[in-house]
Amino acid sequence: MHFLSDNAAAVHPAVWAALQAADAPDAPYDNDVLSRSLDAAFGDLFGRPCAALWVATGTAANCLALATLVPPHGGVVCHREAHIEVDECGAPGFYTHGAKLMLAEGEGARLTPAALEAVVAPIRDDTHQVQPHAISLTQVTEYGLAYTPPEIAALVAHARGRKLGVHVDGARFANAVAHLKCTPREACGEVDALSFGCIKNGGMSADAVLFFDEAAADLARYRRKRAGHLQSKGRFMAAQILALLRGDLWLANARHANAAAAELAGAAGARLLHSVQANEVFLRVSEAERAALRAQGFGFYDWGTDAARLVTSWNAGERHVTALARAISAL
Amino acid sequence: MHFLSDNAAAVHPAVWAALQAADAPDAPYDNDVLSRSLDAAFGDLFGRPCAALWVATGTAANCLALATLVPPHGGVVCHREAHIEVDECGAPGFYTHGAKLMLAEGEGARLTPAALEAVVAPIRDDTHQVQPHAISLTQVTEYGLAYTPPEIAALVAHARGRKLGVHVDGARFANAVAHLKCTPREACGEVDALSFGCIKNGGMSADAVLFFDEAAADLARYRRKRAGHLQSKGRFMAAQILALLRGDLWLANARHANAAAAELAGAAGARLLHSVQANEVFLRVSEAERAALRAQGFGFYDWGTDAARLVTSWNAGERHVTALARAISAL
Amino acid sequence: MHFLSDNAAAVHPAVWAALQAADAPDAPYDNDVLSRSLDAAFGDLFGRPCAALWVATGTAANCLALATLVPPHGGVVCHREAHIEVDECGAPGFYTHGAKLMLAEGEGARLTPAALEAVVAPIRDDTHQVQPHAISLTQVTEYGLAYTPPEIAALVAHARGRKLGVHVDGARFANAVAHLKCTPREACGEVDALSFGCIKNGGMSADAVLFFDEAAADLARYRRKRAGHLQSKGRFMAAQILALLRGDLWLANARHANAAAAELAGAAGARLLHSVQANEVFLRVSEAERAALRAQGFGFYDWGTDAARLVTSWNAGERHVTALARAISAL
Amino acid sequence: MHFLSDNAAAVHPAVWAALQAADAPDAPYDNDVLSRSLDAAFGDLFGRPCAALWVATGTAANCLALATLVPPHGGVVCHREAHIEVDECGAPGFYTHGAKLMLAEGEGARLTPAALEAVVAPIRDDTHQVQPHAISLTQVTEYGLAYTPPEIAALVAHARGRKLGVHVDGARFANAVAHLKCTPREACGEVDALSFGCIKNGGMSADAVLFFDEAAADLARYRRKRAGHLQSKGRFMAAQILALLRGDLWLANARHANAAAAELAGAAGARLLHSVQANEVFLRVSEAERAALRAQGFGFYDWGTDAARLVTSWNAGERHVTALARAISAL
Repeated sequence: MHFLSDNAAAVHPAVWAALQAADAPDAPYDNDVLSRSLDAAFGDLFGRPCAALWVATGTAANCLALATLVPPHGGVVCHREAHIEVDECGAPGFYTHGAKLMLAEGEGARLTPAALEAVVAPIRDDTHQVQPHAISLTQVTEYGLAYTPPEIAALVAHARGRKLGVHVDGARFANAVAHLKCTPREACGEVDALSFGCIKNGGMSADAVLFFDEAAADLARYRRKRAGHLQSKGRFMAAQILALLRGDLWLANARHANAAAAELAGAAGARLLHSVQANEVFLRVSEAERAALRAQGFGFYDWGTDAARLVTSWNAGERHVTALARAISAL
Repeated sequence: MHFLSDNAAAVHPAVWAALQAADAPDAPYDNDVLSRSLDAAFGDLFGRPCAALWVATGTAANCLALATLVPPHGGVVCHREAHIEVDECGAPGFYTHGAKLMLAEGEGARLTPAALEAVVAPIRDDTHQVQPHAISLTQVTEYGLAYTPPEIAALVAHARGRKLGVHVDGARFANAVAHLKCTPREACGEVDALSFGCIKNGGMSADAVLFFDEAAADLARYRRKRAGHLQSKGRFMAAQILALLRGDLWLANARHANAAAAELAGAAGARLLHSVQANEVFLRVSEAERAALRAQGFGFYDWGTDAARLVTSWNAGERHVTALARAISAL
Repeated sequence: MHFLSDNAAAVHPAVWAALQAADAPDAPYDNDVLSRSLDAAFGDLFGRPCAALWVATGTAANCLALATLVPPHGGVVCHREAHIEVDECGAPGFYTHGAKLMLAEGEGARLTPAALEAVVAPIRDDTHQVQPHAISLTQVTEYGLAYTPPEIAALVAHARGRKLGVHVDGARFANAVAHLKCTPREACGEVDALSFGCIKNGGMSADAVLFFDEAAADLARYRRKRAGHLQSKGRFMAAQILALLRGDLWLANARHANAAAAELAGAAGARLLHSVQANEVFLRVSEAERAALRAQGFGFYDWGTDAARLVTSWNAGERHVTALARAISAL
Repeated sequence: MHFLSDNAAAVHPAVWAALQAADAPDAPYDNDVLSRSLDAAFGDLFGRPCAALWVATGTAANCLALATLVPPHGGVVCHREAHIEVDECGAPGFYTHGAKLMLAEGEGARLTPAALEAVVAPIRDDTHQVQPHAISLTQVTEYGLAYTPPEIAALVAHARGRKLGVHVDGARFANAVAHLKCTPREACGEVDALSFGCIKNGGMSADAVLFFDEAAADLARYRRKRAGHLQSKGRFMAAQILALLRGDLWLANARHANAAAAELAGAAGARLLHSVQANEVFLRVSEAERAALRAQGFGFYDWGTDAARLVTSWNAGERHVTALARAISAL
């Protein structure tokens, strides 16, 4: 009964089927029929022209996007608990050739225009200081919180006013859209680039990174190859992503995971550290309580010394979720 | 009837089976049981301790290896037609932070101690010139030629005498071993790092990069993550590689591909540009002859203006190969 | 009556004399007699073997030092107001190929073992997080505060306990030694590398960076050349530095500047934002008061909205200093 | 009697005078009056708007220029004996973040449109290969040969036809203009960036890099700071350059050096390896002959095993030059 990570979840049967269907000769790299259909598939989904590149990880997606938005001598404003700052081993510094992450504050890993401004405003406009060139925000945040469309729009507008590009890390973008009940486009706003997570949501090894600007996409195609991310049998990458887009399977999967988290949240009540809007539940539980839950067979990560993080997946078993909810209630 | 590239070939059924068997919850990244068994599996195969990391492409394998062997201000000697020089979009420059590829001459993309020396000897030992730190050779070469164990040993010895590290790009290492009928260890010599290709040989999306030095492997683990190549569902990567190692499937696959190429080579006779030792056949054919072959349904790449490259795969159909051999004979 | 910056100060006559004496043919780059005598000169001064390289700026000195202490995927802990973080346009990211500055808190831009620990302790020892490899501290700090020898020793010991290298940014190291009345070696502790500032202290265009480890120095020599900092007429660089070392002119210059700052500090009294230990005086003065001082001909920088920074130089004129002290008293 | 290098030559008295005149308080970095007048001074000289930045070395000038012309994943075509390839310790790879130097052939280190084309034409226009973005040529070349204005114009036109930027390394640009008797603008053509050498021509520590595009200059200003090349007492850098421009001292100095070389060339006759157009003389002399010359007090570098390189300077003494010419004749 795994609530450790959506990374541990199984691959969706529709993804398996698509993988096997892709096992026929086609052009290598991203010249196959499936890879060549990605732009249109995402263009339809987002209602605007878009270039979509498959990559093997969210880190690669994020960093390829950043590399198109910031020069090596520039900076990207992000939350101090953003995945790109905390959990990517300096990959943004690698891909951007040394650009700086400029860290903003905010509850629940959420950025606000005011928090952005607190970082950007004091920077002197001279060659002695790294100048900001972009912002990166995570939808949903690292604590499972969604930005509403007006919040996103305000952040994007603020960034534009400062002449900053905008990237959205959407490792759990599906969970955001499922929660917000808005269009994908509303959920990310008029951004420059979006990391569109699939691996945590039923995929095996393919995420997508979307560029809403053709010049940026051209650049990213070279940078993807240069980073060793242009797989030779790319058809197996595109197949996964297309399988999740088909019939909005990506949304159905996210809704299932969100519902499971909501059930746990209901049981956790006042123990919750953060509102539960997606598929992550952070709750206050003592060491003894965590031991008790684990003794009942539930797997999850500690979060500091007196809390735990539970993550639900697209295939969270109803019985398991209910059992865990009861166990939490009973603590 | 595809002879375009071994990249276009299908995934081996045993790899599919292993992928599906891996679809059970396990620890993320490379903490799963399969990933943790790779070192031992390759250690057994090569008869010496080794650390093996999965990666999504040969480019990533090569460049992670180089990054452990050369500092940013150093150089790597390779053949001027080496894949790292010609076909990786500058990935070595990215991964090594600007180290230089120093280009050696040689028939059939083969390095020799004399060719190495011609590059290294003129370099002044001062801070004005980039100093060589390693060599990289490809087994089999980009033209499908194998280095014999004594040849490899001589190159390694020469490099050691110059205090240079040694990397072997083994995108088609299996084809080399199949041809040489020696041990894997003899086929690469006492090198520091080896890119062990699987994708061209029945895999889907996983190659391995081997380090015979623990410090280098430690470094490469950080660099892999930093390059966005640490996949979260790493069990699917390890599964592919282990499936190919099991029962020496990797060797059987390569033998099949080599045999198919040998059949074509027999038909090509005096048309051959290079001896055929692995699964690539380069032959002189006029534009009209190429058109004639294509009209019969055979797919392959032009090689300059008056030649073609044919590549055979682990699953080259006997009927197709024989048909192509006849068509070549009939030209 | 300039109190803007010690960068604006004149070149010391002894430095001029040394420059002109160096205007005779000698070997280019750092092969001249003067450049070759630097190691010994600094070795004597610090009482331990040392390699000293001239460079044109403190930024180059700092960053060459850092590049020997941290790999591209690592991190350097420094104060959040450190010059390397705030005023070098991301040069550390350039020279280290993307390593991360990890920001510690502390009054007056001073690091403490506890502040270091607060940064380092939460970092998980896995490949997902950037691992710290070194610390960098500024002696005197960006607010003109000196670490005492025991304080430095404690920081170095703490760093060593964490297996971290240590760099000291000594842009105003002379002012620290003048204040502390200790040996240069006591003032920086048993560090790996020291940026030894000369330009702010009577020089024209040469600072030194010292390495107490020969392997690091070897690396830095290549990196200096690779950064375009190996000047062809290096004799003019070495000459400046040697002129300042001769007869401890560097110390005399710093004592003069410190004494001038002390006189201003006495006048400033309760207005001081920081204790005055070197040649920088930060004092609370309203906009109107700053205007009044400027109307009397005193030049200085605003420090935020209600403070000013005054910097005294090796050649601060007694009359000017006294006049400014009186003007401050009279506010 | 030094003919080793123009780097060994003295600093011109006018440069000394300008340095000392600059020893008065002014704004730091490049905000002083002198630094701010550089753009106009070079704009006048070249007859078109231009931004001029001082830097401490020709390597820094070259590499800052290249960094504005080529992205990290791109390439720069240059001659295989270009200084940027052979003698800068990989600095171009550092400043461009790993871009590739693509090496062209040509007698006397001279590029031709055909040689360029031989490098560029075979490159496939896909993401697997590094794409060329610029060319860099040296005026005069590393062997002291000048491109005539029509030759330069043809190279620039060819580059533009290929959509490539153009950089000229003018470490000895003065010698080229002195030889060609054309305007500076004709001597470099309508390039994007020019490294304008001063240090070999009477300067002490300042070269200039010129950008004929404001956006490139903006970028270079940040990159100069980020590379640790923004000196705090920049007035001493600008002063040197302005002193050489005043009254065309730079041209007079170069004419003197060229005339000295011409005298030596006359004596060398059939021994010359290259036509002598600037201040470098390459001549065939046996080991015994070199020893004989050295025994007479002449200093110079060996060039391989049976040749020597003699370099004349702005202050080459007439008596010494004549003595050397006679000694060569007498061999």
